Amino acid sequence: MKFTIGQIAELLGGTVEGNAAASVYKLEKIEEAREGSLAFLSNLKYEHYLYTTQATAVIVAHSLVLKQPTAASLIRVEDPYLSFTRLLEEYQKAKGRLLQGVEEPSFMGENVTIGEAHYRGAFSYIGHNCQIGKNVRIYPQAYIGDNVVIGDSTIIFAGAKIYADTVIGNNCIIHAGVVIGSPGFGFALQKDGTYRDIPQLGNVILEDNVNVGANTTIDCATMGSTIIREGTKIDNLVMLAHNVEVGRHTVIAAQTGISGSAKIGDNCVLAGQVGIVGHISLANKTTVGAQSGVSKSVKEEGTIIQGSPAFDYKQNLRALAVLRRLPELEKQLNELKEKI
Amino acid sequence: MKFTIGQIAELLGGTVEGNAAASVYKLEKIEEAREGSLAFLSNLKYEHYLYTTQATAVIVAHSLVLKQPTAASLIRVEDPYLSFTRLLEEYQKAKGRLLQGVEEPSFMGENVTIGEAHYRGAFSYIGHNCQIGKNVRIYPQAYIGDNVVIGDSTIIFAGAKIYADTVIGNNCIIHAGVVIGSPGFGFALQKDGTYRDIPQLGNVILEDNVNVGANTTIDCATMGSTIIREGTKIDNLVMLAHNVEVGRHTVIAAQTGISGSAKIGDNCVLAGQVGIVGHISLANKTTVGAQSGVSKSVKEEGTIIQGSPAFDYKQNLRALAVLRRLPELEKQLNELKEKI
Amino acid sequence: MKFTIGQIAELLGGTVEGNAAASVYKLEKIEEAREGSLAFLSNLKYEHYLYTTQATAVIVAHSLVLKQPTAASLIRVEDPYLSFTRLLEEYQKAKGRLLQGVEEPSFMGENVTIGEAHYRGAFSYIGHNCQIGKNVRIYPQAYIGDNVVIGDSTIIFAGAKIYADTVIGNNCIIHAGVVIGSPGFGFALQKDGTYRDIPQLGNVILEDNVNVGANTTIDCATMGSTIIREGTKIDNLVMLAHNVEVGRHTVIAAQTGISGSAKIGDNCVLAGQVGIVGHISLANKTTVGAQSGVSKSVKEEGTIIQGSPAFDYKQNLRALAVLRRLPELEKQLNELKEKI
Repeated sequence: MKFTIGQIAELLGGTVEGNAAASVYKLEKIEEAREGSLAFLSNLKYEHYLYTTQATAVIVAHSLVLKQPTAASLIRVEDPYLSFTRLLEEYQKAKGRLLQGVEEPSFMGENVTIGEAHYRGAFSYIGHNCQIGKNVRIYPQAYIGDNVVIGDSTIIFAGAKIYADTVIGNNCIIHAGVVIGSPGFGFALQKDGTYRDIPQLGNVILEDNVNVGANTTIDCATMGSTIIREGTKIDNLVMLAHNVEVGRHTVIAAQTGISGSAKIGDNCVLAGQVGIVGHISLANKTTVGAQSGVSKSVKEEGTIIQGSPAFDYKQNLRALAVLRRLPELEKQLNELKEKI
Repeated sequence: MKFTIGQIAELLGGTVEGNAAASVYKLEKIEEAREGSLAFLSNLKYEHYLYTTQATAVIVAHSLVLKQPTAASLIRVEDPYLSFTRLLEEYQKAKGRLLQGVEEPSFMGENVTIGEAHYRGAFSYIGHNCQIGKNVRIYPQAYIGDNVVIGDSTIIFAGAKIYADTVIGNNCIIHAGVVIGSPGFGFALQKDGTYRDIPQLGNVILEDNVNVGANTTIDCATMGSTIIREGTKIDNLVMLAHNVEVGRHTVIAAQTGISGSAKIGDNCVLAGQVGIVGHISLANKTTVGAQSGVSKSVKEEGTIIQGSPAFDYKQNLRALAVLRRLPELEKQLNELKEKI
Repeated sequence: MKFTIGQIAELLGGTVEGNAAASVYKLEKIEEAREGSLAFLSNLKYEHYLYTTQATAVIVAHSLVLKQPTAASLIRVEDPYLSFTRLLEEYQKAKGRLLQGVEEPSFMGENVTIGEAHYRGAFSYIGHNCQIGKNVRIYPQAYIGDNVVIGDSTIIFAGAKIYADTVIGNNCIIHAGVVIGSPGFGFALQKDGTYRDIPQLGNVILEDNVNVGANTTIDCATMGSTIIREGTKIDNLVMLAHNVEVGRHTVIAAQTGISGSAKIGDNCVLAGQVGIVGHISLANKTTVGAQSGVSKSVKEEGTIIQGSPAFDYKQNLRALAVLRRLPELEKQLNELKEKI
């Protein structure tokens, strides 16, 4: 998609200094931009780039006083950062809007309802008795099992697999390779040392505005539901086990694993590669540092923990600082013992 | 699927107290059950829920003496837990039994044999020269490469990818997104610092009753076979590298990784996010705690280890308890030094 | 594929001792080989297996002097290891050469160019405006989004998902279940505690000879490109976040995660389950031990680090050795305190 600088200024309610007829076709950072790019200058720490950038045009503030002439054309606006963000959103909308209709072959079971303006890619599969909202985009090779419910404007990317009975809200984004609703890892140890599968009869519920990153897996509940509440954002390759509940507006970074029946509060932040043991709960606004292993419930809101096993992050930092000096400490202790 | 309470009592050989004509359509925990649900009461610790539950019916023991009247109808049986488990199994069988036949389009190569009563979902792919047993279910978008052998009653869920030459036994369950038989990670470092692929010619063998969780990957052997023995259960997002051998009835929790040529014994338990280095072996009945890193072979049966690097779990717990107090210990040591 | 021992000797320029008419159909290790197998003996440490192996034929050096007669036929060559490697390569070429042509149904968008001698499997999907080289193999159920560029002789295995705008070089191998180009994990925290998606407009660039292991995910850049440079090899279930740059000929083992905007140098080795925090950089030839958590940049070439948080690996080994004795140390310290 190509636009003239004049068109962009009009969209943003800005004014052009330079060549309004020149056109741009991509957005780049001011320090990396090349010809054909549009950049922006918000933080004046980067002002020097304005005079050297190869961008075709730069969005700047009305208030900016130039120290030198610029090769790039300028688009003057009130708030360059907000304007740029708005452009990003328009750009994404424009891209998304193109996807509508049905590519064949695709499969749709019996007794499915699906709203207007949707997209179903080639080789996508929708089972029986599904209820799917409007403006939904189901990319190629995605799989939707029987009895699945999906809200409006949700996107299921290529090859995501949604097992039967899953419920997904509005405006959710499910990325490629995600598996939702696979049976929980439950086996009953028999007297002869073998394991027998415990049937997993529950489902997964995702509320509105939930994002799920590529190749993440969310298991269904043994009974009842594994629940991810409104606005929670989950990164790639995360594992959420059966009967896990994650609160609202919580962020879970890549490769984190949460064991069965653990409950995570609202507005929590779990960094990457964290492990949470089963059947514990984390209070709202808990922050867990990367690679931590959490083995006990956190009861106080706003707690920050780190380590494996995880405890107070400041105490953890101090302990790990001494850990490096342990050999030296042992030596000193031995010297003391000899002296006495 | 809806059943009357009378029908369920008949199936379980139980007796009804209450409304045998009322119907239920799902199974829930007694403390969470709502109208239309069937629950059970086995552990008397939960008896108080019996008098407040919103379940339509509850399975209880013949021997139970009620302390209050119940709103729910009761189904009296010998052992409520066993009866409930039996219901779960019947329910799963009923669901599974529906899936039979071939959805089109699907792809089947030349010279494939496949047994009776199977299901092949739309967009599933079976390569050439495969031998597939009876009662097998291959879900939509699953991929089976050339020369693959699959036993009876095995289920390959949506989008699982089985590379050529893999051998899978009877009654195995392979979940969505699993990759089995991808080439091992083997490269020969050249004198100029580049890497050259080492061809990976082996395969993967899964014996009977093996479960593989969503998005897990099992690499083929360089030569010979990567082997997962009978009854072993593998959770989601696990990585088993080339030439790994896992014994019988072993459990491997989510996000664990086992490096090349490691051998895991029978009846072992590896908790979540464990790492095992290559070319070591773990004795039968070894238990490895979560997030542990195992760098040495375990020779004695029944060993329990923890930590990264892993050692005896009790010793590890004691060491980690002191770790938190390290800054305090250092301070005390310094005070002692000054005193002397 | 079956070959006589005579045919193999001819291919390798070797000579036969034994039955040149006997045939073999697989390659195995000398200690595990069974009838019908071809093995090799390079390291004389394994010479005793030569006299007991059940292999039908073994490749040995011209210079080898037998201590006993062998049941297996021998193929004498200059360098048995090199000869065996050559056979492996011929074998793989032979297997790969068979795959050519288009299986239907498959989907190809408008304005796609694709070179000669390619393979497109059933249910594979290629979006609009893609440029694809020659000898490319796109396996069943693979997904290639719009505007993707793929070089010559690259292989995209079953079910891999390549998002729009990705650029992949020549001779790359992308394994099953890989996701490349999914949007980076970027959200702006709003004043009310909710998160808003930050549009991710960049792409992913893979240079030539890059391997990506099964179910690995590589996110696109927020702006600009996530870049994996020439010859780098990535194992299974690895996570590379937005704007990561990995240098040339670097090896990244399974389940490692690299956070946003981190830069990894050339010829580095990251072992399994490593975590790298965002916005740091590792010098060329850095080695990071398994399960390490790297929180600071490494500036000196050839550094070896280990631990979580990672520091010098020798220092780390010494510290962890003392860690086990911590309870003992604490006891000694307390005894000393009492004495004084």
